[in-house]
Amino acid sequence: MDKKNYSKPINIKDIKVTDGFWHTAQETVRQEMIPYQWEALNDRIPGAAPSYCMHNFRAAAKLMAEKKASPNFQEPAYTFRGFETLPEDPAHPEPDKFYGLVFQDTDFSKWIEAVGYSLTQHPDPELEKTADEAIDIVCAAQHDSGYLDTYYILNGMDRSFTNLKDHHEFYCLGHLVEGAVAYYEATGKDKLLRAACRFADYVDSRFGPEQEKSKGYPGHEIAEMALVRLYEATGEEKYLKLSKFFVDQRGTSPSYFLQEDTARAAHEGKPAPDSDLSKYAYYQAHKPVREQDEAVGHAVRAGYLYSGMADVARLTEDEELFSACKKLWNSIVKEKLYITGGVGGTVHGEAFSYPFDLPNDSAYSETCAAIALAFFARRMLEIEAKSEYADVMERAMYNTVLSGMALDGKSFYYVNPLEVNPAACKTDNRLFHVKTVRQKWFGCACCPANVARMVSSAAAYAFTENEDALFTHLYMGSELTTGKGLHLTLESGLPWAGTAKMTVHTDKPVECTLAFRKPGWCKASVFAGPQGMGSIEKDGYIYFTGEWKDGDSVTIDLPMEVRLNAANPKVREDMGKVAVTRGPLCYCLEQADNGENLHMLRVDATKIGESKLEKITIGGQEMTAIALPGYRQELPEDAPLYADYAPAKESEVTLKFIPYYVWANRGEGEMSVWVRH
Amino acid sequence: MDKKNYSKPINIKDIKVTDGFWHTAQETVRQEMIPYQWEALNDRIPGAAPSYCMHNFRAAAKLMAEKKASPNFQEPAYTFRGFETLPEDPAHPEPDKFYGLVFQDTDFSKWIEAVGYSLTQHPDPELEKTADEAIDIVCAAQHDSGYLDTYYILNGMDRSFTNLKDHHEFYCLGHLVEGAVAYYEATGKDKLLRAACRFADYVDSRFGPEQEKSKGYPGHEIAEMALVRLYEATGEEKYLKLSKFFVDQRGTSPSYFLQEDTARAAHEGKPAPDSDLSKYAYYQAHKPVREQDEAVGHAVRAGYLYSGMADVARLTEDEELFSACKKLWNSIVKEKLYITGGVGGTVHGEAFSYPFDLPNDSAYSETCAAIALAFFARRMLEIEAKSEYADVMERAMYNTVLSGMALDGKSFYYVNPLEVNPAACKTDNRLFHVKTVRQKWFGCACCPANVARMVSSAAAYAFTENEDALFTHLYMGSELTTGKGLHLTLESGLPWAGTAKMTVHTDKPVECTLAFRKPGWCKASVFAGPQGMGSIEKDGYIYFTGEWKDGDSVTIDLPMEVRLNAANPKVREDMGKVAVTRGPLCYCLEQADNGENLHMLRVDATKIGESKLEKITIGGQEMTAIALPGYRQELPEDAPLYADYAPAKESEVTLKFIPYYVWANRGEGEMSVWVRH
Repeated sequence: MDKKNYSKPINIKDIKVTDGFWHTAQETVRQEMIPYQWEALNDRIPGAAPSYCMHNFRAAAKLMAEKKASPNFQEPAYTFRGFETLPEDPAHPEPDKFYGLVFQDTDFSKWIEAVGYSLTQHPDPELEKTADEAIDIVCAAQHDSGYLDTYYILNGMDRSFTNLKDHHEFYCLGHLVEGAVAYYEATGKDKLLRAACRFADYVDSRFGPEQEKSKGYPGHEIAEMALVRLYEATGEEKYLKLSKFFVDQRGTSPSYFLQEDTARAAHEGKPAPDSDLSKYAYYQAHKPVREQDEAVGHAVRAGYLYSGMADVARLTEDEELFSACKKLWNSIVKEKLYITGGVGGTVHGEAFSYPFDLPNDSAYSETCAAIALAFFARRMLEIEAKSEYADVMERAMYNTVLSGMALDGKSFYYVNPLEVNPAACKTDNRLFHVKTVRQKWFGCACCPANVARMVSSAAAYAFTENEDALFTHLYMGSELTTGKGLHLTLESGLPWAGTAKMTVHTDKPVECTLAFRKPGWCKASVFAGPQGMGSIEKDGYIYFTGEWKDGDSVTIDLPMEVRLNAANPKVREDMGKVAVTRGPLCYCLEQADNGENLHMLRVDATKIGESKLEKITIGGQEMTAIALPGYRQELPEDAPLYADYAPAKESEVTLKFIPYYVWANRGEGEMSVWVRH
Repeated sequence: MDKKNYSKPINIKDIKVTDGFWHTAQETVRQEMIPYQWEALNDRIPGAAPSYCMHNFRAAAKLMAEKKASPNFQEPAYTFRGFETLPEDPAHPEPDKFYGLVFQDTDFSKWIEAVGYSLTQHPDPELEKTADEAIDIVCAAQHDSGYLDTYYILNGMDRSFTNLKDHHEFYCLGHLVEGAVAYYEATGKDKLLRAACRFADYVDSRFGPEQEKSKGYPGHEIAEMALVRLYEATGEEKYLKLSKFFVDQRGTSPSYFLQEDTARAAHEGKPAPDSDLSKYAYYQAHKPVREQDEAVGHAVRAGYLYSGMADVARLTEDEELFSACKKLWNSIVKEKLYITGGVGGTVHGEAFSYPFDLPNDSAYSETCAAIALAFFARRMLEIEAKSEYADVMERAMYNTVLSGMALDGKSFYYVNPLEVNPAACKTDNRLFHVKTVRQKWFGCACCPANVARMVSSAAAYAFTENEDALFTHLYMGSELTTGKGLHLTLESGLPWAGTAKMTVHTDKPVECTLAFRKPGWCKASVFAGPQGMGSIEKDGYIYFTGEWKDGDSVTIDLPMEVRLNAANPKVREDMGKVAVTRGPLCYCLEQADNGENLHMLRVDATKIGESKLEKITIGGQEMTAIALPGYRQELPEDAPLYADYAPAKESEVTLKFIPYYVWANRGEGEMSVWVRH
């Protein structure tokens, strides 16, 4: 790693996304999801699982007001209330009680983060007023110590920090920080940021390498990268140190989680847990992070941890830690990544499965895990601009992240399978995690809120810059201003047409580099810069360096042929099958276009040259479908279960593929990414 | 159904199995399994899960002796002890306590049944003495009411019959009856039979259509067919009536199970269950049996129920009930049967999955379920001699039933997958039910004991007879005597050679019919009877009718070509794959012969004519392997996870298939029945 090659995202306040594709998604988030989620946070959506998020903050604020008012106030003693306590009458929760999952506070934090990003693209005084009022409630709920997790504030602070492994207090801290920084950077208002700092300061006073402090670390990671972000926003080094402590401490011996489990078991009069640490692989805490070389456990936790590791490695120039990041990156992209950019092969622990185990129908591929992977990818890019990172980031963002929300922004996927047979999903316990239609909301509402914050901040993934260069990682149509004050316009036809053009607007010539990613999916890309300006290629980026004058431009031609992809033969589930991609998009077959029994269809791989692009309108949006010659196996009436093998009788058909991210926007039906050839 | 076409199995006392294939298996059961199981029942096998079966009987016998001795004896009040209570020190269980699963008594009943069958083939005074002593203990454990289930005798009779759904009392009754009848028929000793009758009488006094009786029925079926057997053994019509009551009552409205669940919830202070009856599909009690047309729920329960239904339909000439049996039969064989004769596509509920869902790697295919299917098939055959029933019975018996035990009889499979990747089975929660090597014993030891009784009584599945005819369903080399006193010798080369010969031995000519099954797997069978005696074919049987003289014979030629089988295209898991069979045997690939990554192998389906039979010795037994031309996909070093599709690079290999029933007799490794073509 070489500090001078580091680059940082441009503040999205300095980018205006004009991209037809992403702007549409951002408008959906702004107009539909953010208002909808605010309603959800306030339990005002009929038929949807209540969040109780704002209820809990209000209840905690009430308690804190009582504490302030009464010198004899007694904090409640801890009462275990289960992981999901619900009121008898959901419409009238008891005003003093906590409801929902232990991390319910983060519904607010993710919402305020999305609001912050959205306000950078589209100022909205009314939304800002709602947000400020929400912030007032949240800040009023903060314990006088600085602690801010309503689960323990309401249920009893005496047991706070006794179950870091499963009770998400640092997860709440992390999301609060992320939301607070985003809102501060968008609006300049620091009330929530100060509250987040107070919570971080309190944690810092209790946890750290110093002898008197506790050696705990997050059960659900995110605080690692959030604290780095807080450090970068405030310049306070203690936050970086705390993050580094969390990273370094994780999985070390003696195991903090085992100590915690043992102590809690003793407290609860239960037998002590066994000392096998492999059970903490779910939390990536089975061994020190520097010794980890296989991506394991809960995929969202993993992605967040690896992102935090990359952040700490970058800022502390820690080669060893960066080396661990690279090993984990390779473990994912070489053995555990779906072609849709999803990760997490198994519902058990919402986790990475073993290498090359990428089942299509029972995939977990959580929306949040794809988001976490994009986080990780961008952080690796910040350290070294290599297109391999951006290729994966793009794959995740254009496919599985967007699959997480309906085109109308009103329903969401948590799980993003690559093959769906609705009849099976409804009758087969093994597939009960797979939903055939998007859901309105979830009790554990991580994914909708995560999509909102990711889509709203998409521009932060498109560009990074350093002293010398601006890097274009994703061809996302935008107007932007670099740190050097260069104004740029990127026009892009992606993902439908492979053409883009970057134009420079400047009062006076500026000496710098504009670097453009050469996408891994494109074999014949052409990058044409200003006359006389040469370019070099390095690590999958084309670097144009020279003096840029007003009106100078780089035109980028990225022919997007239809590609048939095969998986590594070690992926048992994909043997004999191909997946169709074009540019950054992965495609799929849907029953709506191809009838039922999609598994009886076969692509004629010899006729890829006969593929045709077709316009199709789904959810009111026009997009490009792909037609390919293929076959449908005939199914004789009353065919026996087993018969002598004979070459299949097939009829010629045209297979119609649509982008994966828009599947299930036309009602329920079969879907398949991988198709026999 | 036509009563005059009914046929009945020949008492296996009148058959001596000389068959090279089955006799070997029977000797393994006799020499290894029966003694081993007796040790297991007495908890004397180091390293194996204790049974506590005989312990429980001894404890109950002690309690009953105390009751007899003391006029003031107080029966214990019921204490719920969980479904599997284990002593602190497994070597020294408390002498008064019940241990193990609620149906632990059946370990004895299945063992005594196997002992009975085995004694018909191989008299063994020492074994008989052990059995008699065991029977003495069991009979001493019987409650004075006639009740005989040590779980409630030891834990408190006051709660007996309050959880028919899950507490297996009628299952214990059923197995006790099966064991008692088998032992009685083999030895003429009726002590256990009388005990079984007393238990049945007690149940009959408490359950039945009469107004004052309870309307309960078995949670785990088997009593239905066992009571029919008891009726046939004793001539006591009440047992048939009770069986018919159980069949007729099952799933009717109001639901007995729901009433029972509701009452028990009230007793335990729990909320009442919801009224949705679909949850009772696991027990085949979601609707009246006559309305059931899809095989659902726990596959062993289902097979036992359908067997009982067929028995009752036969004896009561109930066309409607027989029609339900046929629908359920078709549901299995047209939509839910593995090519290995296994049933049960899912571990969830050890159950039938939805139609055409026959996953290979996560198959349940319990050994007991294949046995249950053979039970059902023979009962359908008893009603009408159609080869479709015998074909399925043979498939189950020669493949999945025998796969349930190692060739040395010392270890067993509960689950019989059609594809195994040991690395996956050890790391993937979805496959934890699949064992890669056979186990010594199971806490729930249904399968080993069930294999023992099935293999020991195999002859009862080979032949049935009625007034006119002797039916040969399976070509199992035997010497037998028909009800008409005809002595017959069947010589058979199956399953290795497709030749058989039935020879008649008689003092004087006998007028009758000998009918022979034309196996579904044979396309060019030739049946040659005595000169001048014609034959007719009906429902897959060749009927030779005439006057048989001493020395007359029928020679049967059943050419056994190597067949490639394809599954119905609706079976998603088998698309693009074939399975190899020859005669009654299904074959599979093993890593031991073909290396790892079996999924990278492919059969050249155009070269089936080049298949070769090879001798192979496994577990000391010589058998026939099959060599077929095929290909292995090359796996380039460091191949990426995804790449442009290109026709696979393959090298020519010879694929070696071994009989499925002997898989995993040469250590751990991959296995696959279905292979790509």
